[in-house]
Formats: sequence, C-alpha cells, structure tokens
Amino acid sequence: MKDPNGRRPQNVYDDPEFFAGYSQLERFGENWGTAYEHGAFVALLPDVAGSRVLDLGCGAGQLAVHIAEAGAAEVIGLDPSQRMLAVARVERAHPRVTYVQASMDEADFPAGRFDLVVSSLALHYVENYAGLVRRIADWLVPGGMLVFSTEHPIFLARASDDGWVRDGDGLPLHWTIDRYGAEGLREQHWFRDGVQKFHRTLSTLLNGLVDAGLVIERVIEPMPDDEALRRRPDWIDELKRPIFLLVRARRP
Amino acid sequence: MKDPNGRRPQNVYDDPEFFAGYSQLERFGENWGTAYEHGAFVALLPDVAGSRVLDLGCGAGQLAVHIAEAGAAEVIGLDPSQRMLAVARVERAHPRVTYVQASMDEADFPAGRFDLVVSSLALHYVENYAGLVRRIADWLVPGGMLVFSTEHPIFLARASDDGWVRDGDGLPLHWTIDRYGAEGLREQHWFRDGVQKFHRTLSTLLNGLVDAGLVIERVIEPMPDDEALRRRPDWIDELKRPIFLLVRARRP
Repeated sequence: MKDPNGRRPQNVYDDPEFFAGYSQLERFGENWGTAYEHGAFVALLPDVAGSRVLDLGCGAGQLAVHIAEAGAAEVIGLDPSQRMLAVARVERAHPRVTYVQASMDEADFPAGRFDLVVSSLALHYVENYAGLVRRIADWLVPGGMLVFSTEHPIFLARASDDGWVRDGDGLPLHWTIDRYGAEGLREQHWFRDGVQKFHRTLSTLLNGLVDAGLVIERVIEPMPDDEALRRRPDWIDELKRPIFLLVRARRP
Repeated sequence: MKDPNGRRPQNVYDDPEFFAGYSQLERFGENWGTAYEHGAFVALLPDVAGSRVLDLGCGAGQLAVHIAEAGAAEVIGLDPSQRMLAVARVERAHPRVTYVQASMDEADFPAGRFDLVVSSLALHYVENYAGLVRRIADWLVPGGMLVFSTEHPIFLARASDDGWVRDGDGLPLHWTIDRYGAEGLREQHWFRDGVQKFHRTLSTLLNGLVDAGLVIERVIEPMPDDEALRRRPDWIDELKRPIFLLVRARRP
C-alpha cells in the first residue's frame, strides 16, 4: 500500500545487502540490551502490567518480548520486513506477542485499542509523521502513552554520510550539520547506498505530538555517563552530538 | 545578589565595550520588529488584553511596550542592566510599563501574580534554569503562559566562535557543533571576549518546563520562508541550522 503522499515506503530491511550488514549489529542479536540508548528507552516505559501494547517497527521482536515478559497482557509487533519478522517468529515467539507484517502507513486499529504504543528507531522511515501520530493518539486510551526513539535531527541533518570533521589521525573533532531547515527525504549510505530516512526538525517532531492532542512528558537525548564510558570508552565522541531523540507523550 | 550556585551572574550589557557594539544592532533600535525571530515570537503570544505581564530581560523595553500597547493591563520589565533600562526609561516610557533593575535570579513575586511571563533571548544568561522555571510557574495563574526565546542548543554548542566550516571564498558550508552533551558555561566572543552564556541541551530546556508543572504548547525554530528570503537574501544560511529556540508553555 502506498502512503498518503503517494510514495511507496522503502523496505530496506528486506534488501539482502542491507540485511547482511544490519544483522551483524550488536543490537540485532541477544545483546540488544547493550545498545546505546537501551537504558534510556526502557526507563521511559510505564508499568506495562496488564497493558495492551503496540510496537511499531518491531523488527526482530526484542522490545515486544521484553514488554510481554514485563507483564503486558498483549503485544502486537508490526513491521514491514518479512526478513525481520521471520527472525522474530523463530527466535522470539511468545504467547502474548503477535507479529504482523505491515507498514506503519497501513496500520489501522479501532480507537482506544492500546494502553501503550512504542516505537524504537522506526519513525524516521515514515514520511507522514504528523498523520501517523494523529492515528496513534486515536488508538490510545485516555491516559495511554506513546514512547518512541528516533534518529535525532542533529544526526539526520549531518552534512555528509560520516558527519564528522576529523583531525589528521582521522579522529572525530566536530560534528557538522547542514540543511537543518530543509525537511524531507535524506538518502544515506548505511550498509548500502540510498537508505531513505526523513529528516524533520525538532519542532516538527514535538509540535506533531501537541497537534495530535498528546502531552509531552519527557524528551531524552541519551549521553554516556561515567559508568557507561568505563564500559565503552569508544562512546566518548557521543558526547559531541546527540544521535537519538527519545520522547514519552501521554494522551490526556 | 549571587545566584544559588554562588556565581555572580555576568552583566555584560553594562560593559561599555559590549554595549557600544550591541547598541548598533538593528534589533536594539526602532527596527526591532525586523529581527530574525520577531514574527515567530509575537505569533506565540496569547491575547494580552487586560493581562498582568512580566518581561524577564526586558532590555530596552521594546517587547514590554509592544505588549502594553496590545492591551495588557500592566507590564513589569525586569533587567539587570542599568544602561539598557536607562534607554528603556527615556525612549520607551509607557504608563502601563514599569521597569525594574534586577537579575532574574533575585526576582521574587507572589504566587499567581502574572497571566503571562515573556523572555526574549535572556534565559541563556541564567545558570539555574530549572530553578527559574519553577519560580516562573509559581508566579503564573492557572492557565497562565510562559513564552520565551533563547539561543538554540545547536547554536550555543558551536565548535568555534564562528561555528561555520567555510569554503575557499569564506562562505558558510556547514555548521559545526561540539560538546553538545557538556552543559554549562560557554564563553564566546561577541563584541568583546568572555561573554558568558549557559549551554543546555534541548532535553534539559524542555524537561525543565515539564518538571515545573508546565505543559509544552509550541516549540519553534524560526527559519526564513520564501517571502523573508526575498526581503533578506542574506538569511539563506539560516536554513543550515537553527539559531533560536522559541517555546510557549502553559500552567494547567
């Protein structure tokens, strides 16, 4: 199905070349809990005991199963990628998790269907963010929550694939951004050329929530603390610029 | 008076060298309405008819008088700078505007004293932002609004005084940021060396409002549209990165 803008969303996770690269990432496997923003994301989750939860862009199912194991009554994990869902269904089957192959643009649920909608690093693939957020708000019960992570506008608006100005030894000095005000499609090299993401300014991301009737409860730009840096000294450059933006919003 | 952190806030607007430079800016004089973010700021203001308003960092009084002329019952303009207030009192005296010389750190008002608190490009001089926002929330009536502009974290976290990577002709190519995650004092050259501002991440700015019990209504990163670019072609580089962050928040 085409999205409301008439462009068919890219399904890069079903591209063999991309998948071969992505599936080597630590966050893809059993160690997904060591991902950079993992702690910050789970800290935003409300108590899910007994909740009905929708995971938009569930990928290989780690977050969906985490939420089911934390006591959710039901988790629907939605993803457009056949390859990712094949992994989820084999490696992360769970009696209270249902995996559904669909893009976020075609997702359709009754009003008040969920207590919680989560989405981990998937919204930057969606062209019509404002429309999706309005639909999410409709799917939530009053008091329900949306918790998502997305690539930070500072990260997505980088001036090159690399983004860094580097010193003579190739070490990162400064981060570069460009065309921050020019929202829309950005094609970048990530395991393959032409991976499509949508840059939106911070104000667009936040005002979209407000316009959907949601209340912004928390905005997080995860940065490594001293403990994290002892464990992962290579994260020191992450202090130079945010890579992810995490938000929790509530339907009043 | 010292602020709660024990550091006396810099009062750079009373420095003759700084003032000599700043007072040449277009925004200082009668043309303050042509300032880059002006339209976006006034668009955030609620109807002020009959309102009691506090202007934190009122400078030469342009915004305070604008609000008084728009029908506010009373405007208190607060600024630490004797020089700025001298200009305000001579050039922008108004029967419903009272100018008070004080820093934001020492400002003290009864609960529910104001319907609206505004602050134009002054909060980046304040070290204890979270504390100030809590006090502002207390000064507001239920339903009252805070509207402020501040330097955008992307602008304040620039990697050099200039911030740009320039091409061979000296024209801006990309914007550079550094130490985004390292909040605190940044000393920069602006008409003089050592102008002190405080860098805070976007999440700190927004969560400070939430923690003070305010609801975020609008987040704006002004960018020039086609009409503005016809009038001011030199603003084209502003599309590369945001310079100001504007926020409207409401006390529920």
